[in-house]
Amino acid sequence: MSAPKTAEDRLLAWIEQTTGPLPKSIQIGPGDDGAVIQTPSGDRLVLTIDTLVEGVDFETSSSSPQSVGQKSIAVSLSDLAAMGASPWVALASASFPSSTHENYAQKIVEGLRSTASEYGVSIIGGDLSSTPGPISISTTLIGFLSTNRCLTRSGGHAGDQLFVSGPLGGSILGRHLNVTPRIELGQKLIAIPATSAIDLSDGLLKDLDRLARASGCGGEIQADKIPIHADAHRLSRSSEFSPLEHALFDGEDFELLFTLSPADSELWKQGQILTDFSAIPIGQLTESAGLTLIQADGNRETVSPKGFSHDWGVSG
Amino acid sequence: MSAPKTAEDRLLAWIEQTTGPLPKSIQIGPGDDGAVIQTPSGDRLVLTIDTLVEGVDFETSSSSPQSVGQKSIAVSLSDLAAMGASPWVALASASFPSSTHENYAQKIVEGLRSTASEYGVSIIGGDLSSTPGPISISTTLIGFLSTNRCLTRSGGHAGDQLFVSGPLGGSILGRHLNVTPRIELGQKLIAIPATSAIDLSDGLLKDLDRLARASGCGGEIQADKIPIHADAHRLSRSSEFSPLEHALFDGEDFELLFTLSPADSELWKQGQILTDFSAIPIGQLTESAGLTLIQADGNRETVSPKGFSHDWGVSG
Repeated sequence: MSAPKTAEDRLLAWIEQTTGPLPKSIQIGPGDDGAVIQTPSGDRLVLTIDTLVEGVDFETSSSSPQSVGQKSIAVSLSDLAAMGASPWVALASASFPSSTHENYAQKIVEGLRSTASEYGVSIIGGDLSSTPGPISISTTLIGFLSTNRCLTRSGGHAGDQLFVSGPLGGSILGRHLNVTPRIELGQKLIAIPATSAIDLSDGLLKDLDRLARASGCGGEIQADKIPIHADAHRLSRSSEFSPLEHALFDGEDFELLFTLSPADSELWKQGQILTDFSAIPIGQLTESAGLTLIQADGNRETVSPKGFSHDWGVSG
Repeated sequence: MSAPKTAEDRLLAWIEQTTGPLPKSIQIGPGDDGAVIQTPSGDRLVLTIDTLVEGVDFETSSSSPQSVGQKSIAVSLSDLAAMGASPWVALASASFPSSTHENYAQKIVEGLRSTASEYGVSIIGGDLSSTPGPISISTTLIGFLSTNRCLTRSGGHAGDQLFVSGPLGGSILGRHLNVTPRIELGQKLIAIPATSAIDLSDGLLKDLDRLARASGCGGEIQADKIPIHADAHRLSRSSEFSPLEHALFDGEDFELLFTLSPADSELWKQGQILTDFSAIPIGQLTESAGLTLIQADGNRETVSPKGFSHDWGVSG
């Protein structure tokens, strides 16, 4: 049983299906965490755009303006991390309703700047608009690739081991505003090279499904290996879901999900690679399509990705 | 008498005043039509971001979704034109309320693609969000500079002649949705080189004020030389403003305003440069600050820029 597709899923699928051939200077186009382009002299850049909307991605009642600014850069930095890129420059466009106090807007800009500065990113331009609706912030991040490799969602093979970079679930309790993009890990992964990677923005199962499909595989993960964040336990006490379900389905963890070849997984087991990073093995990519959750008792269960998805439009 | 500053003006001024020093790879930072960055191997890129908001920049009742998509790419292309750049790639991020029909969203994407394709631009990535508010589309455009020069707002000198690339005013009657970015003209201007340029998005006087200030000058223009669009005459019949006032203050003409040195102005008079382009001389940059409108009878009037400005926030 597959989860019903949202309007967003359907439009994304339509966009990918109808994207025409791209010129040679575009090495990776729509459909990954970032696009990869090559300049005439051979420099390779990674580009990504993200939009945060008040009432969807943050609430002015519970989020400080600084944290909103910080998040709007950090989620794009997380995309660069998943591509193995070194952050360079950013552009930001913000729309404010007439009710927004100028001091509040300034504090959002200060948040943008502080996170940008922390990761060595220069904000080189922007745009300000008014809006009859909620505050909205779009950020474009541009980074470098310092190798001639790519780190993508699509490079995995059946038998590659799946890892996550940290505990998952319950980010809504506050971590979703306090994102630590895994930039150094991403650079390490492209150097190994890891066979594929994606950042966990929409929930482990949903993003695993994306990575596995892009790689032409399925995925199986072991329930008792999934690292469950303390926030998932806390949230579970007041929700109808188990801590594991929060770890599988909640979004905005912004950890990396990545795969290593069997040979590199062996090196990792021997403590020869990724020694300075948190890397938790949770399963592997499979020949057969679809996602399988293996319970501690060995029971295998087919699961459907149903992570958080922005839903709009008529249902199909 | 200077026009009261809007919240947008004040935040922009604050952002520019508080922007720290930029690394050497950033040749032009915030404050121009686009930023200019140099890659390690020496390629120079121009980047710009713009956001269109339903209810501010377009109305779904009177704008076809294709034209909304077309405009969202075209306004950024106009910024690249003002920088003398050759368009290359774009990223687009769209937020839709749940009431948006998928077919409507698809047609916006089709509009984006058609204008992108017309100007040789590849759309290499994007982002889709839901929103409790109006439709919003942010577009980042990236172009090349094929010379080692820059075309900026700030390169003008007193005595340089001011030109516009076409008739102005009344764009709200429909032209604001049917933007023709002056890409070829911009490339010609950087080759001459013109001393400065800006695209006319917020009204002739307001954008002239920006160019003149950035160049450390004032500007004087001759009322009877301003090219007035037929739309300005039409609009004047049902508005309280004269056709000239529409030409001076209306926004979204998306023509270029640019300056030529006295020597190049002489070449232009002799029909030796810009022969394939519409270029209408309207006045000159001056030593003394401020804007002056010279009437046909020789009367000189100090004018204040008060073009269209997105207003939000408390007044100062």
